[in-house]
Amino acid sequence: MKESPLFNPVLYKGGHITVLDETALPFKETRIKVKNLKTALSLLKEMKTRAFGQVLLFYYTLLLEARKNKINSPEKFSRLSTAITDKFSKARPTFAFGQLNNDLAKMLKAADNSKFIDLLEKSVFTYINLVQGARRYRVKLIAKILPHSARLLTHCNISGELVLLANEAEKMGKSVEFFATETRPYFQGSRLTAWELYQAGLNVYLICDIQAADILKRCRIDMVLVGSDRSTQNGDIANKIGTYQLAVLAKYFHIPFYAFMQPPGDTKNISDIKIEYRPKEEMLKFDGIRIAPKTQEALYPAFDIVPAELISGLVFFDGIYTPQELALKWQK
Amino acid sequence: MKESPLFNPVLYKGGHITVLDETALPFKETRIKVKNLKTALSLLKEMKTRAFGQVLLFYYTLLLEARKNKINSPEKFSRLSTAITDKFSKARPTFAFGQLNNDLAKMLKAADNSKFIDLLEKSVFTYINLVQGARRYRVKLIAKILPHSARLLTHCNISGELVLLANEAEKMGKSVEFFATETRPYFQGSRLTAWELYQAGLNVYLICDIQAADILKRCRIDMVLVGSDRSTQNGDIANKIGTYQLAVLAKYFHIPFYAFMQPPGDTKNISDIKIEYRPKEEMLKFDGIRIAPKTQEALYPAFDIVPAELISGLVFFDGIYTPQELALKWQK
Repeated sequence: MKESPLFNPVLYKGGHITVLDETALPFKETRIKVKNLKTALSLLKEMKTRAFGQVLLFYYTLLLEARKNKINSPEKFSRLSTAITDKFSKARPTFAFGQLNNDLAKMLKAADNSKFIDLLEKSVFTYINLVQGARRYRVKLIAKILPHSARLLTHCNISGELVLLANEAEKMGKSVEFFATETRPYFQGSRLTAWELYQAGLNVYLICDIQAADILKRCRIDMVLVGSDRSTQNGDIANKIGTYQLAVLAKYFHIPFYAFMQPPGDTKNISDIKIEYRPKEEMLKFDGIRIAPKTQEALYPAFDIVPAELISGLVFFDGIYTPQELALKWQK
Repeated sequence: MKESPLFNPVLYKGGHITVLDETALPFKETRIKVKNLKTALSLLKEMKTRAFGQVLLFYYTLLLEARKNKINSPEKFSRLSTAITDKFSKARPTFAFGQLNNDLAKMLKAADNSKFIDLLEKSVFTYINLVQGARRYRVKLIAKILPHSARLLTHCNISGELVLLANEAEKMGKSVEFFATETRPYFQGSRLTAWELYQAGLNVYLICDIQAADILKRCRIDMVLVGSDRSTQNGDIANKIGTYQLAVLAKYFHIPFYAFMQPPGDTKNISDIKIEYRPKEEMLKFDGIRIAPKTQEALYPAFDIVPAELISGLVFFDGIYTPQELALKWQK
């Protein structure tokens, strides 16, 4: 099974970044060159990349700008990275860019000024390799607990992990079939998840978001599995708008609800998470064509919060936890 | 407050029918002329009209075809109307055209052959006037139980009744604010409900279907109110896909869930209702533009069933009932 192009959607090679343009999928697989911070920020705002792609774009932009500005000390880098972190956070306020910056800063603490850029580059790639390894590992944890012939319902897009999951399940002699919500208003389910699973030769049925109750009731779904953009120390998650209602429905139909989680860092509870509101035009237009008049009032929060009590299991890099176990682990 | 054009979307005048083209809304308010059965059926299949418009189109088509075929006896009309009913039912299998036909047949029982067509016309208009009167009455029942300053969440489109409801509420010194789901894949919420409410000068916020949990939790919603395409004697309803999950969510958040119901006729339980599956292309394309590849597997049932236990109140033409009260009433 081929790896999903979404598993590693942003690359750094030869002194510049290329970003897989997710808004052109599934019809065109094109990469956009990024040579500076400005372009990186505009791609981010326009959601040309998202989810794990944001992590990659953030780190590679730091590297790019550090090289361009000939940064040669941790102090100078810290000023630069703080400024860039602020801009990334303004562009997508729900995502924890500050935490990513802190993680990197820790790795750079013992940096020797003379070879600072080399160490920065090494740190960035070490960090990303670690995360990619952990992502490869955690899908095995889910594959293990799946029944022999499993049906998963998913929402939005988990950056290539579902293809890996099916691959791991196959190695264990299990088969997995997917139901993907189309994920309005941005259609990440139709454009990304259905596409990457289909490309990998997997069975995937696309459904409207609003069909979930009907599918959960009638289609013998074994698990609802989603990613997350933020996690709290209490075991709550923030993820693409609509994850909350899937969790409520899963509970109602007694279907386990699992989420790949992020390290909560210092995010204690949901009040520490800022929910991004996107322009209503993204709801009121499709591909430039109006669905509703310009005058229409509309609300488009890009994320919602799933409280811990609705979550059966949080899949972290080293194991699957109940939110309660995780809260204990994190408060140690 | 102006009446919604969707309250009476199909007209019969001067020997032909005109249908308000709902697929052209909200940008164009155009009417399509219907001179024969064939056109009526094709408009129905393409969902140019739906919901209460289907009732009107069905009866007016019977009248049109009876005139054209110079029907002069109940027997001849019965053969014609049975054939037309079959065709309407094939075009939209969830809707109870058979029952509409039976209702009319009862009114025609005592028909005098000599003036058959006149009686048919009179019967059709009497029936429709009764239903329109009942629709005007039942919104008052809901207006009465609303709080002083109410917030309603609705799904799909209730053929003009929400504008009337707000009007009645206003007469009682109450104000109503609406949250309308966009209602994928056909966007009846964006194109019809948001439009008719906005036109009437009412406050309406459009939301993605998938936002409902977030809105129900945070926005102090007093009631979820929907229409229905079919009702059963047990107090279940069939309505636009997604109504089921709104009902589950309403229960979870302890928000009353009310539905305008249809006379159940001889529909005992949900197994008597055939769910229409629409072409997957309606999900995979918007306005001719692809959202997902042609090869994509997708499921698009047009309706789902809300079981009685999730319904707080069924609004019938003579009162509001719990599903249990209704089951007793109907089994009498």
